[in-house]
Parts: sequence; structure tokens; C-alpha cells
Amino acid sequence: MRTIIECVPNVSEGRDRVAIDAMAAAVRAAPGVRLLDVSSDGSHNRSVLTFVGDTAAVRLGVLALFREAVARIDLRTHRGEHPRMGAVDVVPFIPVSGSSVEECVALSREVGAAVANEFGIPVFLYEDSASAEHRRNLAEVRKGQFEGFVQKMMEPRWAPDFGPAAPHVSAGAVAIGARQFLIAYNVNLGTRDLSIADRIAKAIRHISGGFRYVKAMGVELSDRGIVQVSINMTNFRKTPLHRVFECVRSEADRHGVPIVGSEIVGLAPADALFAAAEHYQRLEKFTPDQVLETKLLEE
Amino acid sequence: MRTIIECVPNVSEGRDRVAIDAMAAAVRAAPGVRLLDVSSDGSHNRSVLTFVGDTAAVRLGVLALFREAVARIDLRTHRGEHPRMGAVDVVPFIPVSGSSVEECVALSREVGAAVANEFGIPVFLYEDSASAEHRRNLAEVRKGQFEGFVQKMMEPRWAPDFGPAAPHVSAGAVAIGARQFLIAYNVNLGTRDLSIADRIAKAIRHISGGFRYVKAMGVELSDRGIVQVSINMTNFRKTPLHRVFECVRSEADRHGVPIVGSEIVGLAPADALFAAAEHYQRLEKFTPDQVLETKLLEE
Repeated sequence: MRTIIECVPNVSEGRDRVAIDAMAAAVRAAPGVRLLDVSSDGSHNRSVLTFVGDTAAVRLGVLALFREAVARIDLRTHRGEHPRMGAVDVVPFIPVSGSSVEECVALSREVGAAVANEFGIPVFLYEDSASAEHRRNLAEVRKGQFEGFVQKMMEPRWAPDFGPAAPHVSAGAVAIGARQFLIAYNVNLGTRDLSIADRIAKAIRHISGGFRYVKAMGVELSDRGIVQVSINMTNFRKTPLHRVFECVRSEADRHGVPIVGSEIVGLAPADALFAAAEHYQRLEKFTPDQVLETKLLEE
Repeated sequence: MRTIIECVPNVSEGRDRVAIDAMAAAVRAAPGVRLLDVSSDGSHNRSVLTFVGDTAAVRLGVLALFREAVARIDLRTHRGEHPRMGAVDVVPFIPVSGSSVEECVALSREVGAAVANEFGIPVFLYEDSASAEHRRNLAEVRKGQFEGFVQKMMEPRWAPDFGPAAPHVSAGAVAIGARQFLIAYNVNLGTRDLSIADRIAKAIRHISGGFRYVKAMGVELSDRGIVQVSINMTNFRKTPLHRVFECVRSEADRHGVPIVGSEIVGLAPADALFAAAEHYQRLEKFTPDQVLETKLLEE
């Protein structure tokens, strides 16, 4: 199977079209990279690039992005609503197919070392790549932001994983790490009673005793006169969608409430959907290589 | 969504490696074509090429194949166990994604006219492209084989759809048509009683009152000590896998027999698997464009 890794770097520029286009072009020009999306937010003054490729390709894409971003973004004059600590602020690597989180962790370390070496930018490994528990959460890593990083990095617990002991003068610092693909998945309930959606959300989410890779809350869909269990699936391989769906169904049953439907918001890897066929149809020996489109993606 | 049409031409050469490689190379060289597989059978003296592309690409691929095949294959000296009537014997077009059978029927007519025109080969449209009911079944069209075609084509009901009224002197005639992707799908039952698999096969297959696009029979898996309902799904869009699975389950229940598992043999289009997620998880507004890998296949 072809290796597909998704990379979703956030850069601290969301207004200057020329700079954004130059960064996008640099990524697009990296051999083997496929740039899928660029979303810019003016008030955040921040852009999110989404691209995919194999290990070597995304590595080239990230380094090409840094080259442009470091040349074009100066954090000393950057203003925007979104917290940030670097010109390239955060670089997550996400396994889509033919790759594992472990491989993406290795990739994040390799790219982190290269970024520190080539650009003199301190690198903090975060999420599944974090070198210590307190560095796992991006918000914690970024706390203090660019303006506070000279001070913050003096603390031994905030020494970088790679690179100099102080932030780059204009490009700050960066968080690089591996994480699972996040799927936004909602289940709609045939009732107007928000408290039922809340109770079910509580039943399935990790923090209150539910599935390890589930975040959830109840939401009112007033235009449809129904409520929704709004879910973030943070690891669809270990906590699959169908298992959460069946749990929501069972909990809803207990309240005499029907499941109206469910929905995937945005993108999901094919494997997340194949899992339903495997589960409900009890497929034996199924592999994604049996899917014609997967063969077309092979090199 | 990107248009993907599969084309699986059968050529009457399964022994001469040089000729087979030349035909494969001709197909591979057609712009936009992706050759997925070449399977040759010496005793059949026949090869099956599997390739995909959009409408324009598969059209070019087929014409390139004819050029090589007509130059290299002489039916007058061809011997093999498999019935055949032409150098290129049969050309099926199969919609995989972003295309319909109707579009593939139009494509088969267009390619048929081009083949008749460029090579002087009579073309019979078959399957969903057939111009009359008696010409739908390939075995009927091919009856008489190369050696009998001068005679056969004298009958008005076997006049070709395109091209001359007699077979090409060395390349014979060809059947070209559109059909749905065929999925080989088996459901395994936790019993040694073959008569139960037979009864369930009878319940689900079209010929005896079951689903329109299902062929099925009972099979013994003696090594596993179980039986199987062995199924050909001839149109997975109109008769989806999960519906047949649930019907088999309900019939097995009635005999007190559990479903051990099911299996897809060989390839299937991604849509055939996504249908299970849509059905069982009651997905609203799902489109294959939400699947990351589908986006990667887009032009």
C-alpha cells in the first residue's frame, strides 16, 4: 500500500496574499507533495496548509515551507487573534494510510532536527512525539507566545528538543509532532431534549468514563428541531466510528429516542469507513488493497 | 469526482511473451491510462488486461491495443481451450467512480465505431450496450467462434452493429459493451449442512425470486467444516452488499445458524464498502469526496 502522510502546518500569516501564495507554491513545488488546501484567516492572521505525500515528500514540503516562511514572516511585527509562537507555528504529521503514528513520530524528530539545524529555530516536539508529558498539549507548549519565549525557554522544563536555547529573533519557535487523524463525527437524535444529548455525550467521552479517543458534547440543532451528539474522534483506529455509533444507539434506546442519522464533517481516511463494512458485514481477511481506488494510489 | 472507468479486454494470445508484452506496453503508453494487471493463460491461449482511466484515456488504450493485436494475432492459426471469435475478443467497459453505465454504453458505441472504421473489424455490442435482447449474452454472441463467423454473420440477426458484414480475415470480430463491476462476495455459515447454504442461495438469487443483481449457490468449505453462500453481485449500486448480507443473516437465523463471516474475493470499488458505513451508521449527506484518498485521485 502506498504511504500517505498528511501534514497540516499553521503559519503566522493570513493577510499578505503574495506571501501566502509564495509559501503555498514552495510546498507545491516539493517533489511528491500534493497540496490539498490553503485556508487563510485575516483576523487570526494565520494560514493552514494541508498537503500529503510519502515520508520523503512531506519532509521536503516542510523544509520548503520553512525557507519561505522564515524569509517572509517577522513575529516582532505580527498581530493576530490566534495565539502563536513562530513563523511556522505548528507542524503536525498525520498517518493516513501505509504509515503508523510511530513512523510519524520518527519523521517529526527527523524534520525537527533538520529545521533546528538549517534555520536555527528551537523545536518543541508535541502530541505523540512529546519528550515529556507536560509538553504533549500544544496550548501548554505555546503558552507565553512569541513575546514570552525568551523568558519561558530559560526554564529547564521548556528547553527545546532541538536547536538553540532561545527563540529565533524573527521566526520564534515551532511545535512539531505526530498525531492521529481527527474525524468530526456527529450523531443526530430524534428529540428536542438537549439533556439527552448531553447525557449520551457524557457516556461516550473519555473524560467522564467513555471511550479513550472520544471527545463529545450535546448540541441543539434548532432549525431541524433535534439535538446532536457532536463528537471528535481522535484515534479512529483504536476507537472506531461504528463502535461509538452503536454505543450512542444503545444509550439513546434507553431514553426511547431514535437515531435520526449521523454525519462525517469534512474529510476522513477511507479506512475509517471501510471499518464499518468489516464490522457489520463481518468481513474476513479484508485489506484496503482489495479496493480498486487504493490500487490506483499505489506507486 | 474523478472519472474512473475500468476496461478489461481479453485478447487471443496467452503464450507468446513478446506479443503479450507489446500489447501491454501499447496500452500502458496511452496517455492517462493506468495498466493494473495482465494475466495470461497458456492453455486458454488468452490474456486479460485490466486498465483504468477516464473516458478519453480508456478509449485511447483500447485503440492502441487493437493496433498491436491486429498486427500480431492471426486467428487462422490460433488454438486454445477458451472460445474466441477475435484477436481482441471482448472489450468490457465498467464504471468505477464518477461515471455511469449509461456513459459506458455511449463510450462502447463510440469505441465500436472507431474500431470498425480504423481496423475493418465487425463489432457486436453486448451486455448493457446490446442493440437487441438476443445479443446481450457474450456466450451467445461468440457462439460459432472465429471459424463459424463467416456463416453466422450471414444471418440478419447476427449483422454487426458496426463494420463490415463479414469477419476480418485474421482478427475476426469483437464484442464491445458496458457492464457493472462484478463483486465476488461470500457469506460463511456456522454449519456443516450444505442444504442450508443452498436454501439461502436460492432465497437471495434473482433466478429463483431473490434480488435482481444476485447470482448465488451453496458451497462446502470442508477444510473449515462450514458452508458458504457464494455470491456474484452483478450490480452493487442497485443491490448493495449489506442488503444481501442482512437477508442471508435473517434466513440463517430462521435455521438457527450463525453467520461466521463474509468475504470479498478480489477487487471491489470503494463505493461498495462506503455503502455499509452509510447504511449501518445512517450517514447523512455523505459523499465519496469526503474521503481523503478520493481527493488524492482527483485531477
